Amino acid sequence: MNRDDPSAAGAAAAAKARSDREAIEDFALRDDYALNPTFVRQVMDAADRGDSARVRELVGALRPADVADLMGFVPPAYRAELIADLPRELLVEVLPELDDTIRDEVLDAVSPARIAEAVSDLDSDDAAAVLEDMEDDQRAAVLAAMSAPDRAAMETALAYPEDTAGRLMQREVMAAPQFWTVGQTIDHIRADRDELPEQFFDVYVVDPSYKPIGEVGLSRLLRAPRDTPLAELIRPVTEIDVDQDQEEVAYVFEKYNLISAPVVDDGGRLIGQITVDDIVDVLQEENQEDILALAGVGDVGRDAGVFDIVRSRFPWLVVNLFTALLASLVIGAFQDEIGRLVALAVLMPVVASIGGNAGTQALTVAVRSLATRELSAANSVRIVAREIAVGLINGVAFAVVIGLVAALWFRSAELGGVIAAAVTINLTAAALAGVLVPLTLHRMGRDPAVSSPVFVTATTDIVGFLSFLGLASLLLL
Amino acid sequence: MNRDDPSAAGAAAAAKARSDREAIEDFALRDDYALNPTFVRQVMDAADRGDSARVRELVGALRPADVADLMGFVPPAYRAELIADLPRELLVEVLPELDDTIRDEVLDAVSPARIAEAVSDLDSDDAAAVLEDMEDDQRAAVLAAMSAPDRAAMETALAYPEDTAGRLMQREVMAAPQFWTVGQTIDHIRADRDELPEQFFDVYVVDPSYKPIGEVGLSRLLRAPRDTPLAELIRPVTEIDVDQDQEEVAYVFEKYNLISAPVVDDGGRLIGQITVDDIVDVLQEENQEDILALAGVGDVGRDAGVFDIVRSRFPWLVVNLFTALLASLVIGAFQDEIGRLVALAVLMPVVASIGGNAGTQALTVAVRSLATRELSAANSVRIVAREIAVGLINGVAFAVVIGLVAALWFRSAELGGVIAAAVTINLTAAALAGVLVPLTLHRMGRDPAVSSPVFVTATTDIVGFLSFLGLASLLLL
Repeated sequence: MNRDDPSAAGAAAAAKARSDREAIEDFALRDDYALNPTFVRQVMDAADRGDSARVRELVGALRPADVADLMGFVPPAYRAELIADLPRELLVEVLPELDDTIRDEVLDAVSPARIAEAVSDLDSDDAAAVLEDMEDDQRAAVLAAMSAPDRAAMETALAYPEDTAGRLMQREVMAAPQFWTVGQTIDHIRADRDELPEQFFDVYVVDPSYKPIGEVGLSRLLRAPRDTPLAELIRPVTEIDVDQDQEEVAYVFEKYNLISAPVVDDGGRLIGQITVDDIVDVLQEENQEDILALAGVGDVGRDAGVFDIVRSRFPWLVVNLFTALLASLVIGAFQDEIGRLVALAVLMPVVASIGGNAGTQALTVAVRSLATRELSAANSVRIVAREIAVGLINGVAFAVVIGLVAALWFRSAELGGVIAAAVTINLTAAALAGVLVPLTLHRMGRDPAVSSPVFVTATTDIVGFLSFLGLASLLLL
Repeated sequence: MNRDDPSAAGAAAAAKARSDREAIEDFALRDDYALNPTFVRQVMDAADRGDSARVRELVGALRPADVADLMGFVPPAYRAELIADLPRELLVEVLPELDDTIRDEVLDAVSPARIAEAVSDLDSDDAAAVLEDMEDDQRAAVLAAMSAPDRAAMETALAYPEDTAGRLMQREVMAAPQFWTVGQTIDHIRADRDELPEQFFDVYVVDPSYKPIGEVGLSRLLRAPRDTPLAELIRPVTEIDVDQDQEEVAYVFEKYNLISAPVVDDGGRLIGQITVDDIVDVLQEENQEDILALAGVGDVGRDAGVFDIVRSRFPWLVVNLFTALLASLVIGAFQDEIGRLVALAVLMPVVASIGGNAGTQALTVAVRSLATRELSAANSVRIVAREIAVGLINGVAFAVVIGLVAALWFRSAELGGVIAAAVTINLTAAALAGVLVPLTLHRMGRDPAVSSPVFVTATTDIVGFLSFLGLASLLLL
């Protein structure tokens, strides 16, 4: 170290610290931005040795989202120690990124006062997200440790129902009357640092009763000369009602390519804003829900235990067991026929299986089209007709192939004819059920992703076995 | 009309036009932002009457995304007429919103010169998106109608491979050297209107070789006094390589909550930017692909014809037919046993079906966890062990229930025992296949959503029939 020039030495040390940090981050993340297993191992080894300084160095080199990720990859025993070692600024930013189940767990290791302090630094939407999943008594302790105004703000935010715009929004918002000029607006932003959101993208122009009448994007604001009135720059704005469902909000953001939108109360007055970064999370969450629902799995979070997972899969398997037993009852009604012609038992799963697959295809497309509003009352007749046509065409094509295979395998043209007829019937039934079941559930206000699969596969199983065995008993035996 | 005060009359007329427009828009969109079928009908009726003025009035009241939506809801015959009636400013904004297949079709009705003019007004990413899906000769005609610099820019953009950052990015970008002050930066933005993106959110700070060294968000820029050097406001920036896959880019945006990010070439120099509104579309596209792939359906767009749809579903059904016939071969090997004990035929679909469902659950969770990087080399052993435990627990639970049902139904404790053993074996196989198949495909660099389902259901079908019929022939007959 150069004692003659402490500032140069300081700068050199800072530069070295920065490049060390970057080297650690480069090592920690693989090319696909997943954490490097060796890095995870190093953190755990340092924790095992009780080397807090090294843990802080390794973890401190990560960005908040990567620290949150790391928490998911280390076994639970390490998490409390890692969270305790986080510097406050990093803790603040890591908290909103953590998976809900993990956050619940690690927060037990942090004092309510420290959580309160961290949460007070967050924008109100992130703060509410951290608090909403806590145990009631822990949340009460954290709220008690906050300042009165912060506490009141949090209590208001948490009063909005989950999954609504009210929960997604942040109260901090940049609003301006339309008679302001660009210069006045910029001066206001420079002066009023604390009341504004940490980051914002649009200035909402409001009338005297604080109702939004339009917006001016920051890049538009910056381009205009200082003396331009906001009224000249204003663009129409898409308002979000505070009680709107988050899925609707996400749809609106996606459809109109919004970056931020003002949230209004029942009286139409501006009370907050929602930004697109929160919407990206909602979109992923809703997609995740749909994908898992279609497979009959509940979402239990990345760190769920074996019994939570069993519980998330059990209900669907139970429902499936009932429909499978129903199908067995159908088969049971034809025991004599099967005893006389065992080929029926050999071939019947083919009819049910191909029907089930075609039904799953149709229902998945229908569920997606409903979610993206591509299927609606305006075109449902056309879409249903199209599905039936697809079912018939696939039905005839596969009927020919399967009929030939069956006829050659069991040297019976009649058996081939029967299975061909059953396949055509079942693929048409699959197409119909695949689109009508989701449509009906949607009209009834139910989530079509959740219950469609069971109805559709029950239909194709039962129609498949019944048409094949029934036709066989009528025509062959 | 008040002839004494033309400006007041003009303002009143403008206000009336605005409120008419808003009334039409309110009517056109239902609460869930889907188009009102009655509105769609009205547009078609006006077109049928040849009432272009009314068509323009109705369609002109919509926002670009809703016009694009309308195109999807009217039958193809109406589209050319609707697009021809669009005013140029609206056409420009509607083009990037249109579904690919529909865009292809409607563009045939628009002259290359008019398309070229519209495309020249777009940011380069939207322009490339419009051009990339055109027929080659039509694209050539449009490019020929563009100005030389616009054409060159388009040709560069289209030279990047599809689904990479190069295609997503726009060349227009706001860059500044770090020695600039806030005031200089704002003055530059005010002066340099044409070279900048239409909308931007971050100023990228570059070194003399044009490599990004950080970014300053516009709200951060606006908060600082004019004499603050950018160097004081700079934040670390996440660079995107121009050849990065769009799925990776979307993951990075989501993980780090980015609003925009600089795109760099092989030499690390800034060549463009990607903004989050494009990423929202990519995320939806990738999710859509995963959902459809898991159901074995290709994405053919909202306006596909019956034969396109048949083609998008055929391959999967063919594969399924093969695995179903493979399962039939297994059953065929036990024809004698089934002939002697028909109860086997009645019960065997239960074993296969519950295994198939459990396998689908496990594989869906695994595919999602791989997509979100929650499942990786760092924790795969733990996740596989967890799945096996889940499979065993579910296996034993359902074995008991199904075993009892079978024993009571067919009054045979032995048959109950055999089916219980088969269910346990098949649910464990389902759990193993459900996680190992996607993991293996992922390591091989394949998309696990596409091919996992066929391997997993083939496994559960074959293991299900083989274990049940095999154990029965060993122990019962």
